[in-house]
Amino acid sequence: MGVKRISIVVLRMGHRIPRDSRITTHVCLVARAFGADGVIVSDVRDVELEKKINSVVDRWGGPFFIQTGPPWVKVVKEWLEKGEVVHLTQYGIPLPEVIEEIKASGKDKLVVVGSQKQPREAFELANYNVSVTLQPHSEVAALALFLHYLQNGREFYMEFSNAKLKVIPSNRGKKVIKLV
Amino acid sequence: MGVKRISIVVLRMGHRIPRDSRITTHVCLVARAFGADGVIVSDVRDVELEKKINSVVDRWGGPFFIQTGPPWVKVVKEWLEKGEVVHLTQYGIPLPEVIEEIKASGKDKLVVVGSQKQPREAFELANYNVSVTLQPHSEVAALALFLHYLQNGREFYMEFSNAKLKVIPSNRGKKVIKLV
Repeated sequence: MGVKRISIVVLRMGHRIPRDSRITTHVCLVARAFGADGVIVSDVRDVELEKKINSVVDRWGGPFFIQTGPPWVKVVKEWLEKGEVVHLTQYGIPLPEVIEEIKASGKDKLVVVGSQKQPREAFELANYNVSVTLQPHSEVAALALFLHYLQNGREFYMEFSNAKLKVIPSNRGKKVIKLV
Repeated sequence: MGVKRISIVVLRMGHRIPRDSRITTHVCLVARAFGADGVIVSDVRDVELEKKINSVVDRWGGPFFIQTGPPWVKVVKEWLEKGEVVHLTQYGIPLPEVIEEIKASGKDKLVVVGSQKQPREAFELANYNVSVTLQPHSEVAALALFLHYLQNGREFYMEFSNAKLKVIPSNRGKKVIKLV
């Protein structure tokens, strides 16, 4: 039987080229490494970013998709027709207070991370506004903690399909094996 | 009585201006928000970064220090005389397998995060090389997860001293109060 996994997609808002290129790359890589199905980078088409992430998927495995360009409001409104939207923000309800409710619904999740200047509508459209501490820090860290809680630490034990490279854990140096 | 807290300092290696400015800023802010005592950014003096982080401490509270410029080898070797060094790397022993041993020693921790091209000596000098998943992602996320585990989720309940601003958690919009 097994439990049907919910779908988890990350929406990165407010991406600006080149200012946010590296932070957005980290957001995308965290989304993949922590078990999301894919990432949508809204409002800006960024072919270089797509290439970079697809190259990681090619070497380290998937499945994981990246899409860039669609308007964030459209992505959120379409998602709300079938699932839930969780907006990560310094101003939201602390993660430990709300995570069990979010998990219990069993609905697909769109996890929204933005920049410092999120539009008011992003707060209003979301089913949940969730904080990972009430301090200013990083959407990269907030996303990692949220996905860690949402999936019970699954990221430590994930296997990716069609990987060409795999790390063998070591307390000294780098051990990487080639699988193809 | 109470339990004496260990000292936790983050060492950021491989910082390059301007390429890493935003990622390093996120590393510093995560160090503060997740309860480290301070951050050392090695080998490059970066006065702008110091100003930015000290400005966050001034508004959102501390204590938290930032130091930039000292050679990383010197920082690590001096730390080893009194405490332990934990190097976060994609190639290390998975966090869940080693965190209890790291916590049990009760020694002060220097938590080292670097860039993709860490020198071999960084792996060799560390007491522990620890991975936060075996996938490529982000030193910002790795640091957040490690500090979360090391301090049992303390970041969600921390109070900072001398803060001028404080967030009141809300499921809609932004509520910030001024404390002075």
